[in-house]
Amino acid sequence: LNESRDTEIITPRRLKGFRDALPDDALAREVLLRRIRATFESFGFRPITTPALEHAEILRGKGSDETDRLLFEFRDHGDRAVGMRFDLTVPLARFVAEHQGDLTFPLRVYQIGTVWRGERPQRGRYREFMQCDADIVGAPGPSADAEVISMMHAALADLAVGEFRIRINDRRILNGLLELAGAGGRATEVMRAIDKLEKIGEEGVRAELASLDVDADAISRVTKLFTASGSNDVATIDNLESEVGASDTARAGLESLRTVRALLGDAGVPDGRVQIDPSIARGLDYYTGTVFETTYLPAPDIGSVMSGGRYDHLARLFTKSEYPGVGGSIGIDRLLGAFEVEGRTVETDAQLVVVGSVSGAVTADVVRAAAELRAHGLAVESFVGDKPAKGQRRYAERRGARIVATIDPEQDSVEIIDLKRSQRERVALGELVEAVRRMVAESAS
Amino acid sequence: LNESRDTEIITPRRLKGFRDALPDDALAREVLLRRIRATFESFGFRPITTPALEHAEILRGKGSDETDRLLFEFRDHGDRAVGMRFDLTVPLARFVAEHQGDLTFPLRVYQIGTVWRGERPQRGRYREFMQCDADIVGAPGPSADAEVISMMHAALADLAVGEFRIRINDRRILNGLLELAGAGGRATEVMRAIDKLEKIGEEGVRAELASLDVDADAISRVTKLFTASGSNDVATIDNLESEVGASDTARAGLESLRTVRALLGDAGVPDGRVQIDPSIARGLDYYTGTVFETTYLPAPDIGSVMSGGRYDHLARLFTKSEYPGVGGSIGIDRLLGAFEVEGRTVETDAQLVVVGSVSGAVTADVVRAAAELRAHGLAVESFVGDKPAKGQRRYAERRGARIVATIDPEQDSVEIIDLKRSQRERVALGELVEAVRRMVAESAS
Repeated sequence: LNESRDTEIITPRRLKGFRDALPDDALAREVLLRRIRATFESFGFRPITTPALEHAEILRGKGSDETDRLLFEFRDHGDRAVGMRFDLTVPLARFVAEHQGDLTFPLRVYQIGTVWRGERPQRGRYREFMQCDADIVGAPGPSADAEVISMMHAALADLAVGEFRIRINDRRILNGLLELAGAGGRATEVMRAIDKLEKIGEEGVRAELASLDVDADAISRVTKLFTASGSNDVATIDNLESEVGASDTARAGLESLRTVRALLGDAGVPDGRVQIDPSIARGLDYYTGTVFETTYLPAPDIGSVMSGGRYDHLARLFTKSEYPGVGGSIGIDRLLGAFEVEGRTVETDAQLVVVGSVSGAVTADVVRAAAELRAHGLAVESFVGDKPAKGQRRYAERRGARIVATIDPEQDSVEIIDLKRSQRERVALGELVEAVRRMVAESAS
Repeated sequence: LNESRDTEIITPRRLKGFRDALPDDALAREVLLRRIRATFESFGFRPITTPALEHAEILRGKGSDETDRLLFEFRDHGDRAVGMRFDLTVPLARFVAEHQGDLTFPLRVYQIGTVWRGERPQRGRYREFMQCDADIVGAPGPSADAEVISMMHAALADLAVGEFRIRINDRRILNGLLELAGAGGRATEVMRAIDKLEKIGEEGVRAELASLDVDADAISRVTKLFTASGSNDVATIDNLESEVGASDTARAGLESLRTVRALLGDAGVPDGRVQIDPSIARGLDYYTGTVFETTYLPAPDIGSVMSGGRYDHLARLFTKSEYPGVGGSIGIDRLLGAFEVEGRTVETDAQLVVVGSVSGAVTADVVRAAAELRAHGLAVESFVGDKPAKGQRRYAERRGARIVATIDPEQDSVEIIDLKRSQRERVALGELVEAVRRMVAESAS
C-alpha cells in the first residue's frame, strides 16, 4: 500500500503570516478562552457561530478600499464570489438581519472565532487571528453600553492579567463640535486622524487635519479635547461640559457618557480601571456613540487589548429595521503576546500523573490504576512509550507532569515520584491511589 | 455620517452548505465541546492549533482525485496556491514533521477545529463542519490504540448520550488474507468496497469486488470475515484465529486486536460498548492497523459518530523520520443531529437571573444587585430593554431564564418570580440576593 507511494518529501511549511500553536501555547490560549466564555455566560451572553466564508458582497458591504485589499477572496466551486471573514462584526450584522424573527431582543451574544486578513505580515501581525466579541443588539440606551464594558472589565480582571485601564469616550462629543464648526461632513477623516494621536502626537494630528483641509476652527475645537482630561472623571466631565457649548449632539453624548461612567461605578468596576478620555475616537466608521479602548499597563505599546463601542446602524446594510448595538472585543493574541514579554505564565492547574510499569509494557495494572486516579479528578495517562522507569521519568519531566508512578508487578509495589517536590515513595500497589492523592493534596496546601 | 450611505439593501444570506448557529444550538455545541476537551485533558492530551489555510501542495500531498475536487483552493495575495484544510489529519502530519524537534514523544494532542469541503450540499452534509480529533504520535504498540479508544469511550459516555457501540478491527487481518490469496496489491480497492458493507450488503460487496477483477479466492477469504463474529469477542477472536492461517501479517493484526480488546476491558470500558467487528475496514488509505467506528444505537443510520485508527506512515510525506500514530475523531455535528431526531436536549445548567426596575430604567440598585448575585455564581443580566415589569417577564421567559427580579426603588422592595415553578415573592431590596439564592437552591434539591 505505502511502498507504491513515490518517496519524494514535501517540505513541511506554513504560509507566511500563519501560525501553529504548540501544546503549551495552545493550552494557555484555551484556558484564557474558557475563562472569557465563562465570564460572558455569567452575564447572560450566549454564543453564536457564523461561517468562515461569506458571499463577497456581504463582506464588502461597507466598501472601504482597505477591506477590498485585505479580503481573501476567490471563486468557489459554483463560481460564486466568496471571501473569508475579516472580522466578526459584519457577519453579526448579516446574522441579525437574516434571523431577526428567531431572535430575542435585546440580544446578548458572543462570538469567538478566527478571522483572516491579507495584511503584510510583520512582528505581532498575522494573517489569521482570533477575535472574542460580545454584543448587545436592540438596546439603544447607555445601560447596554455600561453592561458590555462592565462585563469586559470582569473578563479581563478574571484572566489574572496585570493592571489595565479602559478608556471611554462618546463620539457624539466630537461629532457635535465638528458640526458647530461647520465640519460635520468630515467626521470620518477627523476620527481617523485622531485615532493616530498616540502614534503621531498632537502636533502630528494637527498637521494631518490641516493637510486634509479641515477648517482651523474645527481643528482648534477638536484638539482642545486632548487637554480636557481632568485629575479624575468628574473633573473631566466638568471640562467637557464647558466645551460642548451649543451642540445638542455633543450634549447628548456627554450625558450618555456620564450615565455610563456612573453605572460602571455602581457595578463595582474599580475607579482606577476606567477613565474618561476625550481623545479616544476609534478609526472605524460604524461607531455612533460610546467608544472605548483598553491600555494594558505592563505593556502599553502593544495597542488596545479590549476595544469597542456603540454602532446604531450596522445592520442597515442588510435590513430596513434598525438594530442599535454595542459591542466589545478582547484581543487575545495581543494579550498572550504581552504575557510573553512580561514572562507571565497562564495557570493551567494541570496536575498530570504518568503511570507505567518497570518493564515499560502497559499492563492491566497500569490502565486500572490510571482509570481509578482519573475517577478522582486527576489528569492521568498510561505511559505508552515502551521505555523502563528512567525513560518514563524523563518523559514525565519533559511533559511537565506532577507525578510519575512506576508499577513493579513482581513486587506488587509502585514507586511514586513527586517531580515538583523531588520526593520519592514506594508503596504497595493497592495503596497507589491513596498515596498519589495525598501527595497532590499536601503540596496544594 | 450614515445618512450619506446609499440605502440599497444587500439581501442577508449565507453560502449554500454553510450554517449559522443560533444561541441555543451554539450553546449546546459549546457545552459538548467543553466536556470533550475536559475528557481529553483528563487523559493528558493537550490542544494544538493549525491554520485554516495551507499551501495547496501540502493538502494535496496524498493526491486523490476526490481531495482535489473537494478542496477550496485559490491564489492568495502573493499568488501562492493555497487551500482551506479539508481535515485535521494532514495538518497534524505537517505539524509533526515541521516541529518534531520541539515536541515530546509519544505526543498526545487534540485538535478541535473547522474544516471545509466543497461537497454537494445535501441533508446532513455541509461544506463547513467541525472535527474533534485526538492522536498519539510516536508510539507503535497496541497500548496507544487502547488508550485512544478508551479515552474516546470516556468522552462519549460523559456527553450523556444514548447507548453506543465502538466496533474495532485490525486492517492487517484483511491485508494478510489478501496477501495469502495473492491479491495484496488490491488492498485499497477491497477496503473501500468493504467499507460500503452496511450500505450495499454482502452481495453488493461481492459483486463490487468481482467487478474490480478481484480473484475469487480473495473474495471468498474476505467475505468469510463478515460471518466471523461470534456471540462475544472471545468467540470472534477464536473464529478469526482459524481464518488467519499461515499469514504472519494477519496473525500480527489479530494479536494486536486481542491486546487492545483486553486493555479496554482492564480500563473499565463496559463489555457492551465495544465489539470486535471483522467487517470494519475504513475507506481511508492511510490506516495500517487498528481501525474503529462507532454506532450510535438510538440513530444507527446517521453513520459513525466516532472513528479512527492507526496510521504508521502519515508523516512520511513530509519527513524521512517515521512517526507511527493512532487517532480518533468525534463527529460532533452528527451527534447533535441525532439528538435533534431523538428530541434529546443538552443540559446547559444555566440558571439565568434577569434583574430590572419597575420603570424599566437600569438604576444603581439594578447593577449592584446583578453584580452581587453574579458573585454568588449565578448567571445574571441587567435588563437593558427599557420596558416595565411585564415586558421584563416576557423577555425572561423567551430567554429561558430561571428568575426575573424587578426592583421597586420607591417601595425599597423587589418582586421575584421563579419562572420554572411559577412562584412569586416580594421581599425587601436588602433581601434580594438571599431570596434568589434560596429559590435556586430549593428547586435544585
